Amino acid sequence: MGLLDTISSPRDLQRLPTDRLDDLAGEIREFLVDSVSRTGGHLGPNLGVVELTIALHRVFDSPRESIVFDTGHQSYVHKLLTGRHDFSKLKKQGGLSGYPSRAESEHDVVESSHASSSLSWAEGIAKGRVIAGERQRHTVAVIGDGALTGGMAWEALNNIAVERDLPLVIVVNDNERSYAPTIGGLADHLAALRTTRSYERMLDWGKHALQGTPVVGELVYDTMHGVKKGIKDIVAPQQGMFEDLGIKYLGPVDGHDEPALEQALRRARAYGGPCIVHVITQKGRGYQPALDDTADHMHGIGKINPETGLPFEVSGRIWTDEFNDELVRLGAERPDLVAITAAMMIPVGLDGFAAAYPERVIDVGIAEQHAVTMASGLAYAGMHPVVAIYATFLNRAFDQMLMDAALHKAGVTFVLDRAGITGSDGPSHNGMWDMSICSIVPGLRLAAPRDGEQVKALLREAVDVDDAPTVVRFPKGDVADPIEAMRTDGTLDVLHDAEAPEVLVVGVGAMCPTALQVAEKLEAQGHSAMVVDPRWVLPVSPDLVRLAGTVRHVVVIEDNLVTSGIGAAVSHALQEARVAARLHTFGVPKVFPDHASRGQVLEAVGLTPDVVGTELIARLTTAE
Amino acid sequence: MGLLDTISSPRDLQRLPTDRLDDLAGEIREFLVDSVSRTGGHLGPNLGVVELTIALHRVFDSPRESIVFDTGHQSYVHKLLTGRHDFSKLKKQGGLSGYPSRAESEHDVVESSHASSSLSWAEGIAKGRVIAGERQRHTVAVIGDGALTGGMAWEALNNIAVERDLPLVIVVNDNERSYAPTIGGLADHLAALRTTRSYERMLDWGKHALQGTPVVGELVYDTMHGVKKGIKDIVAPQQGMFEDLGIKYLGPVDGHDEPALEQALRRARAYGGPCIVHVITQKGRGYQPALDDTADHMHGIGKINPETGLPFEVSGRIWTDEFNDELVRLGAERPDLVAITAAMMIPVGLDGFAAAYPERVIDVGIAEQHAVTMASGLAYAGMHPVVAIYATFLNRAFDQMLMDAALHKAGVTFVLDRAGITGSDGPSHNGMWDMSICSIVPGLRLAAPRDGEQVKALLREAVDVDDAPTVVRFPKGDVADPIEAMRTDGTLDVLHDAEAPEVLVVGVGAMCPTALQVAEKLEAQGHSAMVVDPRWVLPVSPDLVRLAGTVRHVVVIEDNLVTSGIGAAVSHALQEARVAARLHTFGVPKVFPDHASRGQVLEAVGLTPDVVGTELIARLTTAE
Repeated sequence: MGLLDTISSPRDLQRLPTDRLDDLAGEIREFLVDSVSRTGGHLGPNLGVVELTIALHRVFDSPRESIVFDTGHQSYVHKLLTGRHDFSKLKKQGGLSGYPSRAESEHDVVESSHASSSLSWAEGIAKGRVIAGERQRHTVAVIGDGALTGGMAWEALNNIAVERDLPLVIVVNDNERSYAPTIGGLADHLAALRTTRSYERMLDWGKHALQGTPVVGELVYDTMHGVKKGIKDIVAPQQGMFEDLGIKYLGPVDGHDEPALEQALRRARAYGGPCIVHVITQKGRGYQPALDDTADHMHGIGKINPETGLPFEVSGRIWTDEFNDELVRLGAERPDLVAITAAMMIPVGLDGFAAAYPERVIDVGIAEQHAVTMASGLAYAGMHPVVAIYATFLNRAFDQMLMDAALHKAGVTFVLDRAGITGSDGPSHNGMWDMSICSIVPGLRLAAPRDGEQVKALLREAVDVDDAPTVVRFPKGDVADPIEAMRTDGTLDVLHDAEAPEVLVVGVGAMCPTALQVAEKLEAQGHSAMVVDPRWVLPVSPDLVRLAGTVRHVVVIEDNLVTSGIGAAVSHALQEARVAARLHTFGVPKVFPDHASRGQVLEAVGLTPDVVGTELIARLTTAE
Repeated sequence: MGLLDTISSPRDLQRLPTDRLDDLAGEIREFLVDSVSRTGGHLGPNLGVVELTIALHRVFDSPRESIVFDTGHQSYVHKLLTGRHDFSKLKKQGGLSGYPSRAESEHDVVESSHASSSLSWAEGIAKGRVIAGERQRHTVAVIGDGALTGGMAWEALNNIAVERDLPLVIVVNDNERSYAPTIGGLADHLAALRTTRSYERMLDWGKHALQGTPVVGELVYDTMHGVKKGIKDIVAPQQGMFEDLGIKYLGPVDGHDEPALEQALRRARAYGGPCIVHVITQKGRGYQPALDDTADHMHGIGKINPETGLPFEVSGRIWTDEFNDELVRLGAERPDLVAITAAMMIPVGLDGFAAAYPERVIDVGIAEQHAVTMASGLAYAGMHPVVAIYATFLNRAFDQMLMDAALHKAGVTFVLDRAGITGSDGPSHNGMWDMSICSIVPGLRLAAPRDGEQVKALLREAVDVDDAPTVVRFPKGDVADPIEAMRTDGTLDVLHDAEAPEVLVVGVGAMCPTALQVAEKLEAQGHSAMVVDPRWVLPVSPDLVRLAGTVRHVVVIEDNLVTSGIGAAVSHALQEARVAARLHTFGVPKVFPDHASRGQVLEAVGLTPDVVGTELIARLTTAE
């Protein structure tokens, strides 16, 4: 590991002779395979951007100049080149984040892992620099072809196109993949660019027309603005859509040819206005097991054997599996069921349905807004769409859920995976907002299953609703052990009974085990408690309100933001019914939790049976 | 009004001889000017689509085939042609909606007035028809060039491009305007298409190649799929970005030449796959005062004199004016202030700032997501952005406010106009969700000014916060009469005082007058009450919590969704502090209110001093 050890900042990299860069790239790949196989993390994407990241840090002057990664899971090489060599606790509490992190380094800009935002960030930064009189500080966005399918990217491109003088370079990291192969007209167009424009012509032209030095750059810049059409014809007799839109295009460039990348980036830098550099990379480059993995080229992995690429432990059955299986069964019974994913077919568990009913599954790309509104259109035409999506990404489609699905009483079922605390992927992956935004939506019904049986049962009930949106949400990871109901009380499952209880504890979905443990603690202190699982938590069940009228205290425990989730909905329902019981709501506080395991985050935010129990007992004692 | 009276459905229109269509168009324009000048409404956009709407209803078979308008404010002609001739109560309680409405007509599909959604709706409907085996039922989306700048439209286009057989026609209604002139690379590209492709060539080709009958259509369809490139070269030797993306393009077509429109639409219908028809229209066509109005060609008007186009009454000072003026003053003091609008420069009150500091104002088009993330980038580069936006459109940028602005502690100020109940524009224009989604966002501070003085003061305080997003929200319409504070208590303004009060009434922003009247009613029944305006309502002020500890009842009155706004936030704050007082929250119930005046909607949802006072007195009596 000789060379990599000598690189603790981009300056070190810039001083490295060109003929050592191949060796460095090799060392970085070795490091990535070795390290990520031990911790888990994003492997394939980072193996694909080794040369690109080296070239970026040799051409641009970070942190004076900003490099924005979209998404940040492709920033491991960037981390290595900016002095972060200890990957031993990657994505673990106290270790490196799996995404850029401003707390880690001044070289990091955007921490969120929601896709398609980089062009907007970069335009803002670049404009800010210009307004501040610092036009010479360039800004770079590195955006995958997948992220380009998101609407935000279009909004930004449309704006950037008319900012003729903005010092902004857009690197399109084209590996033909989102999580899975990128879909849509844009992907086809990128493919056309790949085949109709040869590397050689672009590079030849480069050698004659432009050396990349600032002075020559200025000249060429002027020339280009004066005789744009003419120059364009030299560079690219066949125009592409980026140039139709008005953005300078350079490429395609071989993303594993470092000198070619440097040359293209220097030219883009010298251009003086927004310039797209189309870079062709290979996901999983240099690591055969990743190349062989056709599903996702080891996009994100758990711990693996680096020799074979095989996982060390066979994982158990996860929540997603329950949904996956049941949807296949439902698909056979209901020819009107249509499943929709935003570029995450396998992770959200639609692969079973897709295999069985390929004509009824739609991958829209990274396009949550479109997914939800298209679903509303499908419902209008008599289908029942199931939109399967990570809970955190529903945020992107809040307006569409409200204004397209709910306002139009569309029978669309949302299946939210990775709801609640997900942990290791950091603040932007936690699904702790979904019940808050869903609770705002008129007519919407939301179910939170407590175990696998309930996933199946509630999904079945959800797709039976054809005049309003329904939501089924469950967490990441291993499905919970089954909890049998002792009895039902109206719509509620009673999980723990007590005669004339003092306290009614309401468990929301995966928090039911916590609710049971809290009840145990209360009873140990002499407070009799009953535990119910409402199954459907939005709207608040009249049975829950009725039961609340018979106790002194109502407790709601949820793994959503505490101030505006199910607890808040129950609060209002009790108020309206003039129920006298005091309400105590427990959930995630209004913070962005740092990355750590799910258990550690729950511990850190105080959402454990111990903390909740202790606080409750104190409150009950006060109230006496 | 002879001809128009004979048209009560598209069938009537289809039976009309072609040589009468000019007369019909003339009558429709006369009707629109006469009628909308009396009621107010969207005039300019509808004058522009008279011939287009006639042609649409002659070529497509509504309601068997769906026509989706984006946005629905261009649906007045559609309403007339589908049997709705009584415009006397347009946008008023019990009268016609200003947008399509399923309750009004089976010809109406999408009711929401949020832009850029039509392509997603239309793709969903068309796909649903295909899955149901009804491929012969076409779907049409009519989308303005402005709406095409929204990211949703891109997400949809990217998907539609690869649906080669989908029976879907996309009419781009290109009037070069959003509310104001459309911005960005797309607008430039549309302009290039307008100038480089002549009407004649397109139409000539049409006459020779295709008659528009189904049989010939099939042939041509096959031909096109077989030798796509060849046909393309005949139609359009110079490709445009839509074809780069993979979508068939026809046009441009003169949007006021009905026969040409019909011909183009029939050809698009016969094509058999997704096809864009680029139609050039003139906003305000046929009405000189609208054409003369360069600001927005009478986009939306109040009551006017139809002869002169001048408004009948000079409107008073509105909330927006207070913001407008103060931002100009702040701009002089703060060179780092940058103002951002999403295609609504004048309506959101940025025209003053734009005139004074043109280099520091940015119109991003209908692109709220980009606006917010670009603002985060500007903040990173040391600016202080002010994003001025209608409250209801913030929904589109919730994820960006959370994940780009708040997670990155960006000092971005959001100024939300038209917050609360707006009324006449119907359910999708009410600003009743903003405080709910803002209350979810960690670190965010939200101010609700009660009058014009407070707009200015709170805006000033907001732009001083540089490490978190801030929000200032105020309603539509005439600014409230000033309410002087009697005194302050910590951060709170005390508006009405009482010694050792039984009830603490909290007024949120524009609901302060209601809070005062409720307090009066309480006191008339012997319940002493104090009224405070917290000014900053998020996060909940510790002073408010302290005061709540001294009373038996706390009342929160807000014009936001009652279940998850400020009342819910106060509820949690009191719970955490173990405050014993009972909380009573009043706001908008979880419904989509029908269009009516603001007062009528508040009445309908029970958010009046009478209703709130009566309910409260009942609760206080119960509690005694």
